[in-house]
Amino acid sequence: MMVLITYDVQTSSPEGSKRLRAVSKICQNYGQRVQNSVFECLVDPMQFKQLKVQLEAVIDPTADSLRYYMLGANWKRKVEHVGAKQGYDPEGLLLL
Amino acid sequence: MMVLITYDVQTSSPEGSKRLRAVSKICQNYGQRVQNSVFECLVDPMQFKQLKVQLEAVIDPTADSLRYYMLGANWKRKVEHVGAKQGYDPEGLLLL
Repeated sequence: MMVLITYDVQTSSPEGSKRLRAVSKICQNYGQRVQNSVFECLVDPMQFKQLKVQLEAVIDPTADSLRYYMLGANWKRKVEHVGAKQGYDPEGLLLL
Repeated sequence: MMVLITYDVQTSSPEGSKRLRAVSKICQNYGQRVQNSVFECLVDPMQFKQLKVQLEAVIDPTADSLRYYMLGANWKRKVEHVGAKQGYDPEGLLLL
């Protein structure tokens, strides 16, 4: 399933910057960055569970925000991209 | 329909900062900010068209990125929020 992850991490402290790097690194293990704080992750339910556990262990819930959007099976028809960094095909990674 | 809008605007120049403010202002006219660069907009097809025209007139397509995600009718069941800035109900605005 395609899950869109968006996050805001408060980086006004060195700890915040560290959390931001950690969140980004975890997301990179599961999906593709499409904007600075936006990842598209093609995951199965078990991977999604793991991903959430890891992210939620890293963030500070009083300062940072995480949102998960389940885009469903027909996600390709639900996304439109305009401007820099062209849309890509996350499933295309399998071809590498 | 619920449309999620995410954007990255390159703010390394004063023009970029101006574009960022303009994008944010346009989005505020159509929906609710849920993270710094993420808005949820409950719009009809005509409003969505207007919103796109306005945003795309403001961004620099060689530097900035805009993504639209159509969340469909059952969007409430497709969103999960963790951490700061609790999820809200955009339809709840009608109650104000």
